Amino acid sequence: MNSGALKDQIEFLREIEKLKTVTRANKTLDGRNENSAEHSWHVALMALLLQQHAEQSLDMLKVTKMLLIHDIVEIDAGDTWLYAEDQESKKELEERAADRLFSLLPDEQHDEYLELWQEFENRSTNEAAFAAVIDGIQPLLNHLLTGRVEDGVIPIEKVRSRKAYIQQHAPGLWELVESLISDSEAKGLYV
Amino acid sequence: MNSGALKDQIEFLREIEKLKTVTRANKTLDGRNENSAEHSWHVALMALLLQQHAEQSLDMLKVTKMLLIHDIVEIDAGDTWLYAEDQESKKELEERAADRLFSLLPDEQHDEYLELWQEFENRSTNEAAFAAVIDGIQPLLNHLLTGRVEDGVIPIEKVRSRKAYIQQHAPGLWELVESLISDSEAKGLYV
Repeated sequence: MNSGALKDQIEFLREIEKLKTVTRANKTLDGRNENSAEHSWHVALMALLLQQHAEQSLDMLKVTKMLLIHDIVEIDAGDTWLYAEDQESKKELEERAADRLFSLLPDEQHDEYLELWQEFENRSTNEAAFAAVIDGIQPLLNHLLTGRVEDGVIPIEKVRSRKAYIQQHAPGLWELVESLISDSEAKGLYV
Repeated sequence: MNSGALKDQIEFLREIEKLKTVTRANKTLDGRNENSAEHSWHVALMALLLQQHAEQSLDMLKVTKMLLIHDIVEIDAGDTWLYAEDQESKKELEERAADRLFSLLPDEQHDEYLELWQEFENRSTNEAAFAAVIDGIQPLLNHLLTGRVEDGVIPIEKVRSRKAYIQQHAPGLWELVESLISDSEAKGLYV
């Protein structure tokens, strides 16, 4: 046993317990705000199940790791709603958070996980692009399932513009996205 | 795009939204009961981070998949607290739940995920044994972090007996387990 590494790993795993307290704009079926930990579970499993619809063959372990850690910076930075006006100020906050959080890990894992997070943020590889696609689809499914969105309704043009990248990165999933958007429009959630 | 497969996959992904409403005995830092979706996120990431402490080299994608789906049967069967007296009746309920839930998936994925779930339940491979070890450690960490356990306290002998398998399957993590148990004993959580 490498007990030094284990001590650091446990410290990190203790710290990320807090992600269960970071709430998102989306709702759960029992009326809470969804938190970023359960959202991360949902997208990780979603990516695994939908991998055949990616354009390229992907390293799925990498995609899964990326999605499991993609939101942990919110422990320090909070969650910023995709449709909020100010998307700029969160970038610096999240970078500081990534530095602090991943520094808890042993050096080798620090490097691996910080790079995975940066790769996801920059959508710089096929794996990151697919992870971002899945992260973009899950809320559409959630809105339909819970029948609720932040502020009561979302302007449909905002939804279309924020989700447009999906068509480019995963054309095989674009028809699904369009149908989810239409269904939420029919329910009056997007106007 | 295989649209038949996609339709089934989305139906499954809709159904498992419910896992966010299945509560466990353990608490969160904001005083809720932890749910099985966020627990699954925590154990999946924990397994990835602690893999070097396994005795064997493992297929980590398999371990991760297993942990992401290990509790979804609770959507039908509910969560049974590890220290509850009746552990027998849940087995049949969970098997029926696994049949129903994984049947929503396309055939190939149905077979893969049902087998992964059975493998986890039976601890029949090194991957399943390690996943079970991680699933056994996360609650020990959670008790210490939140300072709360179901019923106020848990008899320490019950904890030791229910966690004994960890020593056999992952001796490299046993010292950690003993130290977590001692710390919770010192806090009066285990008596």
